[in-house]
Amino acid sequence: MAYINVPEGVPGIRSLVMFRPETGKPLYELAQMLLRGNSTLTEAERELIAAYVSKRNDTMFCMMSHAAASRALYGNDKNIVDDVLKDLQQANISSKMKSLLNIAGKVQILGKEVKPEDIEAARKEGATDKEIHDTVLIAAAFSMFNRYVDGLASFTPTDEKEYEAMGKRMAEKGYVAPQPTNNQNH
Amino acid sequence: MAYINVPEGVPGIRSLVMFRPETGKPLYELAQMLLRGNSTLTEAERELIAAYVSKRNDTMFCMMSHAAASRALYGNDKNIVDDVLKDLQQANISSKMKSLLNIAGKVQILGKEVKPEDIEAARKEGATDKEIHDTVLIAAAFSMFNRYVDGLASFTPTDEKEYEAMGKRMAEKGYVAPQPTNNQNH
Repeated sequence: MAYINVPEGVPGIRSLVMFRPETGKPLYELAQMLLRGNSTLTEAERELIAAYVSKRNDTMFCMMSHAAASRALYGNDKNIVDDVLKDLQQANISSKMKSLLNIAGKVQILGKEVKPEDIEAARKEGATDKEIHDTVLIAAAFSMFNRYVDGLASFTPTDEKEYEAMGKRMAEKGYVAPQPTNNQNH
Repeated sequence: MAYINVPEGVPGIRSLVMFRPETGKPLYELAQMLLRGNSTLTEAERELIAAYVSKRNDTMFCMMSHAAASRALYGNDKNIVDDVLKDLQQANISSKMKSLLNIAGKVQILGKEVKPEDIEAARKEGATDKEIHDTVLIAAAFSMFNRYVDGLASFTPTDEKEYEAMGKRMAEKGYVAPQPTNNQNH
């Protein structure tokens, strides 16, 4: 049971956005812009950064759903997602993605953990200013989404198949805020 | 010097939003809705939650600017801000605000740190679902803003008078995204 009176059975952030659509609107717009907007990082890569940070924050709902979205977007290379979540250093991804995920991991701890040498390492692998910016903001945004979802104890499904379907929808349709609830008890 | 090529001399998040206006727009809308939108928490109280979380995240820019905005909004009671930032338990604020700031402090650590008894304590002091929701989301959002500003090492002024003027502007005008830079080097 969530800590506040949100629609029952609606998972994760959707229930919170239905409770408070005024703040939900910019939250969904931010997710859409970061994860589906114009970028030289692929949508699969950006979803992977989101899943990686959510795993480090121990937020099951966001980790499972964004990992599923990333798998759907990677297609035949979907094993990359679980490989990265298991062991970043051993995973079969580009050195550039490793250096960006390293930055995301530092941001997850705290902003000041990102050091000039982390940025330099990413730049050496060809990362642009915009890619570094987007990586930091995706990691920062999921440090918010994770706290929002867990801080209000919103409903977290446990069935993996549910996340697979969710991930496919997220991959195909992106982030569209749900309709507000008619519940006036708040 | 910031880690990426943002406009020089522009402080904190403004420089980042000028670099990437597409993500800046929902970020400013979120801040405006959370800190100036319709709520039974006063604007001064919401700015105080933002400053309190930013202090715990050691983000000087956000802490100084939102503390200044809160002082401007508290007016004659402006000492409340520094009292809370110094020692929450000894500060002369309502038990309800103390219980909400306690929740904000838990969110700053991690979402799952918020326990049913923290929510129960706030409810006993009269906090509504919406006030609990907004407190959690303000704390989560500043866990993002703080990481964004520090993770890219954006410019942090050190002159207290600069923050006083900034706080007054924030109190009077709220959060309006700056115009994008013409810098095309990214």
